[in-house]
Amino acid sequence: EIAAAIEDAMGRGPLAGKRVVVTSGPTVEPIDPVRYISNHSSGAQGAAIGRALAGLGAEVVFVTGPAQVAPPEGVEVVRITTAQQMLDAVQAALPADAVICAAAVADWRVAEVAASKMKKTKGALPTLSFAENPDILATISQMKKGRPPLVVGFAAETDDVVANATAKRARKGCDWIVANDVSPGTGTFGGAENTVHIIREDGVEDWPRMGKQEVADRLARRIAEALDG
Amino acid sequence: EIAAAIEDAMGRGPLAGKRVVVTSGPTVEPIDPVRYISNHSSGAQGAAIGRALAGLGAEVVFVTGPAQVAPPEGVEVVRITTAQQMLDAVQAALPADAVICAAAVADWRVAEVAASKMKKTKGALPTLSFAENPDILATISQMKKGRPPLVVGFAAETDDVVANATAKRARKGCDWIVANDVSPGTGTFGGAENTVHIIREDGVEDWPRMGKQEVADRLARRIAEALDG
Repeated sequence: EIAAAIEDAMGRGPLAGKRVVVTSGPTVEPIDPVRYISNHSSGAQGAAIGRALAGLGAEVVFVTGPAQVAPPEGVEVVRITTAQQMLDAVQAALPADAVICAAAVADWRVAEVAASKMKKTKGALPTLSFAENPDILATISQMKKGRPPLVVGFAAETDDVVANATAKRARKGCDWIVANDVSPGTGTFGGAENTVHIIREDGVEDWPRMGKQEVADRLARRIAEALDG
Repeated sequence: EIAAAIEDAMGRGPLAGKRVVVTSGPTVEPIDPVRYISNHSSGAQGAAIGRALAGLGAEVVFVTGPAQVAPPEGVEVVRITTAQQMLDAVQAALPADAVICAAAVADWRVAEVAASKMKKTKGALPTLSFAENPDILATISQMKKGRPPLVVGFAAETDDVVANATAKRARKGCDWIVANDVSPGTGTFGGAENTVHIIREDGVEDWPRMGKQEVADRLARRIAEALDG
């Protein structure tokens, strides 16, 4: 304990020499030059994770969409807009010891982005067709060569949180899933607190409701332990 | 000139006793509890107009979506999210001497908002069907009883700016349209400057490129002249 505290204070910390990529915030998918699809992710949890990892001495590459919460100090910030740009930025940041996918990435983008503003025509409603975005978590988790030793995903769920997140972990091939309930009323999106479940191969850990920075600090410690093992 | 300056300084100003409703910022239309459709309006032009009108002594009701730019001082702020909520707020603020529709209102909302987060299913792409939003500018412009004496709309265009805006003025039934070019590269959305054209029944006035506050100040003076006439 004391040795760890001294190490942290000396700026070496348990993650000294480790490179971690963190994704954060929403992605923004254009419809036309003025309209877009996004989501209510504030970037608060991702920023807290980046801060916690940097605090333990990690070299952090922080790949972020346009978030309400500012990126933490002491990290390398890469700003992107779309899911495709986020994947490109994560891949460009490899090799890394861990990739933490905390961003709320759009599953779909608009198939054909209009070059001009779509006009409103009497009686005619627009139809938007979608194309699937690259799956950043699955892509990184399933790398044949150079897969980071630890890949962590997030699952923002509104129903059957643990069951959906456990299925997501298996489907993506990542090591851990941090699952949280974002139902309206929980105040998770945009709020200061989070109630998470850590889903690993060997089972589920339910963490009590706590501040997002406390979630981040605990998670960073776990990441340090895992990379040390 | 001197009399006007003294009037302004005394807090009476040419719009003293006049009530003006200003809409500003984007609207946000939900897709499901986490996703939404919005647009890149920063709210800067609307905020500048609210400030300019209040500066000339008007009682301003400022109806705004979630904008990047803070509302001006000295106005009554009504915060809304969707186009329908914006219309409700404008109607609730009537009667008024003028309504200035500077918000970038979504033409369409998602027809059936999902109560739970839409799940990604292998091979299946979502289809979003849309419903037409109420047309705030047309609704206020075409009021049979209690129509405000001056209704001003905005047209954010990417092509044929003046032609499209002139057609819009006729279609909506408003008094003036303030038209601007929001093509990528003009820097209008999110930028500090604006190049506008004022489209009235008697013709088009092209204003040179200027700061958004200067556009607002000029427009507020024109509004004062029109309401005085």
